Amino acid sequence: MLRSQTKLLDLGRRQLPGLWRCLTKANISKLTMVEVDDKSGIATLTLNRPPVNSCNLELLLQLNENIKQIECNKSRGLILTSSNDKVFSSGLDLNELYKPDQERLKAFWTALHEMWLSLYQCSIPTAAAINGHAIAVGCVLSAACEYRVMLPGFSIGIHATKFGYVVPHFIMISYLSVLPRRIVERALLQGKLFSTEEALQVNLVDEVADSKAEALCKCAEFIDSFKQTQPAARALTKRQFRAPDVQVLIDDPEGQLRESLDYINKPSFQEGLGEYLRNLKAKDKH
Amino acid sequence: MLRSQTKLLDLGRRQLPGLWRCLTKANISKLTMVEVDDKSGIATLTLNRPPVNSCNLELLLQLNENIKQIECNKSRGLILTSSNDKVFSSGLDLNELYKPDQERLKAFWTALHEMWLSLYQCSIPTAAAINGHAIAVGCVLSAACEYRVMLPGFSIGIHATKFGYVVPHFIMISYLSVLPRRIVERALLQGKLFSTEEALQVNLVDEVADSKAEALCKCAEFIDSFKQTQPAARALTKRQFRAPDVQVLIDDPEGQLRESLDYINKPSFQEGLGEYLRNLKAKDKH
Amino acid sequence: MLRSQTKLLDLGRRQLPGLWRCLTKANISKLTMVEVDDKSGIATLTLNRPPVNSCNLELLLQLNENIKQIECNKSRGLILTSSNDKVFSSGLDLNELYKPDQERLKAFWTALHEMWLSLYQCSIPTAAAINGHAIAVGCVLSAACEYRVMLPGFSIGIHATKFGYVVPHFIMISYLSVLPRRIVERALLQGKLFSTEEALQVNLVDEVADSKAEALCKCAEFIDSFKQTQPAARALTKRQFRAPDVQVLIDDPEGQLRESLDYINKPSFQEGLGEYLRNLKAKDKH
Repeated sequence: MLRSQTKLLDLGRRQLPGLWRCLTKANISKLTMVEVDDKSGIATLTLNRPPVNSCNLELLLQLNENIKQIECNKSRGLILTSSNDKVFSSGLDLNELYKPDQERLKAFWTALHEMWLSLYQCSIPTAAAINGHAIAVGCVLSAACEYRVMLPGFSIGIHATKFGYVVPHFIMISYLSVLPRRIVERALLQGKLFSTEEALQVNLVDEVADSKAEALCKCAEFIDSFKQTQPAARALTKRQFRAPDVQVLIDDPEGQLRESLDYINKPSFQEGLGEYLRNLKAKDKH
Repeated sequence: MLRSQTKLLDLGRRQLPGLWRCLTKANISKLTMVEVDDKSGIATLTLNRPPVNSCNLELLLQLNENIKQIECNKSRGLILTSSNDKVFSSGLDLNELYKPDQERLKAFWTALHEMWLSLYQCSIPTAAAINGHAIAVGCVLSAACEYRVMLPGFSIGIHATKFGYVVPHFIMISYLSVLPRRIVERALLQGKLFSTEEALQVNLVDEVADSKAEALCKCAEFIDSFKQTQPAARALTKRQFRAPDVQVLIDDPEGQLRESLDYINKPSFQEGLGEYLRNLKAKDKH
Repeated sequence: MLRSQTKLLDLGRRQLPGLWRCLTKANISKLTMVEVDDKSGIATLTLNRPPVNSCNLELLLQLNENIKQIECNKSRGLILTSSNDKVFSSGLDLNELYKPDQERLKAFWTALHEMWLSLYQCSIPTAAAINGHAIAVGCVLSAACEYRVMLPGFSIGIHATKFGYVVPHFIMISYLSVLPRRIVERALLQGKLFSTEEALQVNLVDEVADSKAEALCKCAEFIDSFKQTQPAARALTKRQFRAPDVQVLIDDPEGQLRESLDYINKPSFQEGLGEYLRNLKAKDKH
């Protein structure tokens, strides 16, 4: 998997041994990396925004572009992972939410909607190799994939209630697509972060792997499980099956956007977030 | 938990050691009791209508009032339990349904709707210490809470099909909020009463406790699991998560009421209920 | 169970010992057989279209008629099984879909909708004794029943993505009524066929039996579990519980029909199906 022989998406899979090059502007800026394995036809999309892969506007835009490209270039599957060996993704970049410029906030939240839609409805098989903590939107990214393999010793979950945030509809839906309702409600209300072992037990992740290489391998095996299916029928079945989940966001993007922005702009939320950020910084200093 | 030092809700938590007093008219009539633990801030709401805590109009009104008061008084959580060590609640008082006065029936069913909405959407953490049989609406009360601890040797479930009743939409929804669809359908159709052990196995209850004190303690521990969350965000998340479940009842209370009353007033249902009540009385004599 | 003493449905259960007669035109053609056990009042509906119980128009019409008759004749329950000891049902007769006469195709698909609605909403208890492979619509027939007992060594599932078909809404719903969402999505996308053991593990079947006789016996025991319920309340509860699942098909039968026929008539689907059928024939020759 993902050996040295890779190909560039935009070069139509001509072999360029040993050459690792950037596909897009964003790869130049290294927010993400995309590699396609020439043998398997599987694309690996790597989150690469130090220090903790927090999602700012630029990363969300880049992810959305990568996902669409990988889909268009007829890759056989997409594996999402992180270049950081401690953190898969810490979630949204909270600086985007705190005392925000309104135009940028609007662009940020719209990019979040669009990236999630791209990943959740991606026509090819998708899997997450969760090689570090997957917090908040980091968990949502994983849950939007069709399969999850996680390394031991990390945490995964949506802890929004702990810093005073109310998750929007599409994030609830994303959790519900993987976990039973009873577990989702309690986890959301508690802001629960599951250990790898707990996540496996409730099927929030499908497998545990001892290394990133093994996780990528298991993700590739999952993608291989579709070998005998017809890609067009698979893609349309996935789209139809997930259609009810995305309906609210597709029918009323403006309304969903307004609701989230109104919440983010509330003084009470801004105050809570400010305190949360100050505590984080204080912790960092110790 | 619930030690002798308690406070009156309406006195704003001023300490009155050793003094156990009634909060409301209904406490005077002792249909329910409310105690608030001054240390934990947790309110315990105790069903207290002998002999089997069957819900008549007065008990439903009282419960609704208690739940709203506990919520308003900023208790940290609500535990629902029973003063009877054999029966948590036997469900609705069937005398309210048999050959009913139409005005009272309407008030009764409206009170059932409103009490359920209050409990199901209660903004603070809720848990049931099920220290006896929880039958029909007794089960629904438990299921409306966020957590359930049950004592061994008792039964819990909705047995409506056994006396010819068809459960309304909100009761189906309440069951579905806790159990998988496959299990709910079969349990509803069979009128199944689960033993404590069976209830634990399907997660209709979360834990088993050996005594009422232990059950109350486990409920308090569950409520404590929200310590690090922001109450307002928790409350809004719960409300949004449960919103689809209550929509029918909120959008069309008149229609839901009419449907239930029509069913209750059907001669075939009245006949079946009459026979059921006569059999119960015959059993009581033996 | 199903001993020699059976009765004809249309003769109102008059006893005709040793006499096994056809109930309807279709029984004459032996596409199905219906037997009613006089002791238990349970009707057994046996699929009997060699070689593999594939559903053509005539079989679907016959099944629909049988189900409605059994329901009308106040049988205490319905058990669906197969006369073939290797195949419960292979699914739809693909010859009905390949280069179809449009009038017949329309009648065929309408019959599929109506048969499914009859079985899924059948007022009496239903169970499937799955004594052979249950593929595609064979699996859907089983899932539409309230209980499933399967013999070891067989396969059950919906493998539509493997021959390029996209399952319609009612078939997704049927799978979702039995399995958790997470499992349904993956199984549909992979076109997964579950072994008996796998099916038991995910609760796609409820029990495993070592022989057809034992399977029939276990189905009868399930039907007996409703002995203490009132049939009218049970029937209405089932209908209300399943109502949301059938709503699309009942609200817009024309639209659902058109969508399916459009898909079947697509050149790409016809080509894929043609190849699939040629491969099947080639396999048969070896």
